[in-house]
Amino acid sequence: MTGQVETAVFPVLIGGEWRPAQVKGTLQATNPATGEALEGLYPVSGQEDVLAAIAAASGVTPGTPEHIAAFLQRYAELIEGSGAELSALAALETGLPEKGRLLETELPRTTRQLRLAADTALSRSWTRPTIDTEAGLRSVLQPLGKPVVVFGPNNFPFAFNAVSGGDFAAALAVGNPVIAKAHPGHLGTTRALARLAFQAVQESGLHPASLQLLYHLPPDLGFLLVGDARVGAVAFTGSRGGGLALKRAADAAGVPIYLELGSVNPVLLLPGAVAERPAELAKELFNANTLGAGQFCTNPGLVIAVEGPGQAAFVQALTGAYQSAGSGVLLTEGAAPHIGAGLKTLTGAGATLVAGGQADTPGFRFQPSLLTADAKTFLAHPDALQTEVFGPVCLLVTVQEDELDRVLAPLEASLTASIYSSATGSDDALYGRAEPVLRQLCGRLINDRMPTGVAVSSAQMHGGPYPAGGHPGFTSVGIPAALTRFAALRGYDHVRDGRLPAELQDANPTGCWRLVDGRWTQEALA
Amino acid sequence: MTGQVETAVFPVLIGGEWRPAQVKGTLQATNPATGEALEGLYPVSGQEDVLAAIAAASGVTPGTPEHIAAFLQRYAELIEGSGAELSALAALETGLPEKGRLLETELPRTTRQLRLAADTALSRSWTRPTIDTEAGLRSVLQPLGKPVVVFGPNNFPFAFNAVSGGDFAAALAVGNPVIAKAHPGHLGTTRALARLAFQAVQESGLHPASLQLLYHLPPDLGFLLVGDARVGAVAFTGSRGGGLALKRAADAAGVPIYLELGSVNPVLLLPGAVAERPAELAKELFNANTLGAGQFCTNPGLVIAVEGPGQAAFVQALTGAYQSAGSGVLLTEGAAPHIGAGLKTLTGAGATLVAGGQADTPGFRFQPSLLTADAKTFLAHPDALQTEVFGPVCLLVTVQEDELDRVLAPLEASLTASIYSSATGSDDALYGRAEPVLRQLCGRLINDRMPTGVAVSSAQMHGGPYPAGGHPGFTSVGIPAALTRFAALRGYDHVRDGRLPAELQDANPTGCWRLVDGRWTQEALA
Repeated sequence: MTGQVETAVFPVLIGGEWRPAQVKGTLQATNPATGEALEGLYPVSGQEDVLAAIAAASGVTPGTPEHIAAFLQRYAELIEGSGAELSALAALETGLPEKGRLLETELPRTTRQLRLAADTALSRSWTRPTIDTEAGLRSVLQPLGKPVVVFGPNNFPFAFNAVSGGDFAAALAVGNPVIAKAHPGHLGTTRALARLAFQAVQESGLHPASLQLLYHLPPDLGFLLVGDARVGAVAFTGSRGGGLALKRAADAAGVPIYLELGSVNPVLLLPGAVAERPAELAKELFNANTLGAGQFCTNPGLVIAVEGPGQAAFVQALTGAYQSAGSGVLLTEGAAPHIGAGLKTLTGAGATLVAGGQADTPGFRFQPSLLTADAKTFLAHPDALQTEVFGPVCLLVTVQEDELDRVLAPLEASLTASIYSSATGSDDALYGRAEPVLRQLCGRLINDRMPTGVAVSSAQMHGGPYPAGGHPGFTSVGIPAALTRFAALRGYDHVRDGRLPAELQDANPTGCWRLVDGRWTQEALA
Repeated sequence: MTGQVETAVFPVLIGGEWRPAQVKGTLQATNPATGEALEGLYPVSGQEDVLAAIAAASGVTPGTPEHIAAFLQRYAELIEGSGAELSALAALETGLPEKGRLLETELPRTTRQLRLAADTALSRSWTRPTIDTEAGLRSVLQPLGKPVVVFGPNNFPFAFNAVSGGDFAAALAVGNPVIAKAHPGHLGTTRALARLAFQAVQESGLHPASLQLLYHLPPDLGFLLVGDARVGAVAFTGSRGGGLALKRAADAAGVPIYLELGSVNPVLLLPGAVAERPAELAKELFNANTLGAGQFCTNPGLVIAVEGPGQAAFVQALTGAYQSAGSGVLLTEGAAPHIGAGLKTLTGAGATLVAGGQADTPGFRFQPSLLTADAKTFLAHPDALQTEVFGPVCLLVTVQEDELDRVLAPLEASLTASIYSSATGSDDALYGRAEPVLRQLCGRLINDRMPTGVAVSSAQMHGGPYPAGGHPGFTSVGIPAALTRFAALRGYDHVRDGRLPAELQDANPTGCWRLVDGRWTQEALA
């Protein structure tokens, strides 16, 4: 690489300045709708950048909760102010539509999430202050005192971006500095967001090293980063292979790592529900499965339909929807080959392809694809037939009522499980048989809805048993719960009142909710 | 081994019956006060026992919260009913005194802990039900649906015993079956407790496989046990080497493991506090450091005293206390060599032995031992001089005020950190310098007290940064917080009211505390 090219490589953000990367290679963003490379060279960083980012973030306190809230609010404003440009850029890099998705849905969700995180920083609702007056003990969740490393996924350039998404907001709202690793699928969007974030850092007086950004790393440097004992925690959303490799490195150093690795998200259609509205259910499933070209970790990839009077109409409507649909634009060049390989695994295990099945052009596209199997086929190869295909692919397994328990038994861990049942109660006995099995294997159990949407809510559970999620006790979406992943429980034993953090002082100066002698209250101590 | 000997080996508890172990070897308990082996042969189990215990506990629901509470209460009664015999047996196996310790302190603490766990099972206070009425989402902590493996330590034959201690009570109160691994230091006590526990299981109608007991395992079978994906979580209290080896095996299978590995628990004595009461502080430190022959994970092993007018009197009183003290009985045969090796490390790194230093007889004993070092010596070898010695050993580091920051900087993670300061406020400036450093490195920060006691409290934090603890967000002591280690967060998305768990139903039939739209309440939904 010549010196001339190096000067054109975008700088990384470390320690409060955009500085030249230690360039070990470069990469470019790509327009997946055309397959063409986009302008701009992004650096693959070397070890010096990784160590510099860790050193810069170590020991950094971003600011008081008030500073942090001001930052999050200002950042949300700046994102809104550049909403049109950001959405256009993200659309170019991801092939996701601006209308209905990037500009109208994902961007407002992202700014709402940042503002909710700001509110939570101010209300301290994530800190769970606990006071035992008799024992003289108090405890509270506090920042880790170490940076949080965030790896964003490919499929949400705003809402899960490592410099603007839920993990970023949660880590910062707690009061931890962030080391962000961009996803190569939307490098320009990440750069643009990080520039706004850093502007907000400066305007709100946050510590300048509150956010570092590295665009790309060779795998061994990813392991070096998450396996450094100076790191407080890691949040990773993405593929199982990548996540589990990072987990090995983090585990070895005792660094907590939170994984959200996707799954097939089984949907169980009970016969009463199908009989009541076969065509609507077919449309609902088709829409959910092909939304964003199926590239959701909560995509309904496996549907189990118990046979009944509405099934023929349902299958006909569903097949028709897939057969008449155009190809969706995929996020990355590797997506279509991955989907093709997944389909081969499914058909190789006995599933029948009834619609779609082919990659398409221009750019990176794939036909919405429907496969079917009966219970006997599914039970012959239950593992292969639960292969997650990250794309617009659905496997419909039709079962007789008396086969249901056997088909449910081999189901693996998932983020979600959905059950559709009749409004009249006619499916209740089947529901009672299926629910205990599905409840154990998923994080979020759903009635009469598709799993695709993941609301930012105090009661959200976006996670699940390993290896769909990394830890069964935590959610990666939801405020305040998602913040607690990046907090340390700290006890105070007979510490004098003036020395306590505000959340634990007798007078409760911040007015936060506290568990005092077993009772939740916002009152001061008597 | 002959057939005759095998029949004399105590059976293990698996799947609701005391059954012959797959005997791969045997071990005996020892009286550490005399060094003599005690009667009774306990099995070292083979792989079949491990796999049978996992299989028996898999899919087991011990019972409703009401059943579980009845079990915990009945078990507490049975322990009290056998209190004298249990204490006599535990004293024989551990050398710990019955009066003042086993019968009068640890046993009541254990039964109180079981009853608190019962109350918590009934109140559901560990479940944190959360309701977002607008989003239609609800979430709650629930049992893992898989067994919890509990490894007890050597130093608390009742309160941390794998079949009666805090981890056992927490795992069961949540509603998980337990696979307990006894500590070889009190095999007979564990057997006696497990027999009472199983009696309580039967009397209270709990699922018979709610508790399995294995006495001993070769290391590779310990790894097999915790690395089995059918296991829901692991709780380990003990040595760093043992805990981290188990962690590797559990991590590889995605099984959450909670470690409590001990530490040196630094105590900082500021000059005003020492000047106010030098002799009392010396006595307090000596008592705390030699209690239970120093075999507490919260033993104050490293004391940093800032020089001032009271220091000479303090050091004189402290030295006198150690020099005139008799040897304490250690828990196991390996303890004295371990302490001897630790002292060698400390003196080899420059510390001066001023009292004690020798193993003693009969049985397994060691002299209370005091070492000193100045700041310069400490800073030359800060790692070696933080060697944890599990016994009655204290290193006193005397520092000048201007050396304090440098001495605190290299301190490692600990369960606790204590700061003694003047009641007049004369130490407040020094406190302000030291507190931020000590706060980051410990789980529990203490004012004006020794760290030894660990109260069972809603606000306890018995844990700390890695590798003092295994996960910074959790405590291994305290109710309800310790229970949440063994729980899974489960979301309910538009699930119909009658299908929700009781904690989430509109009517709030159990009256538990719930976070409803950001407000904690016990009320039903309007």
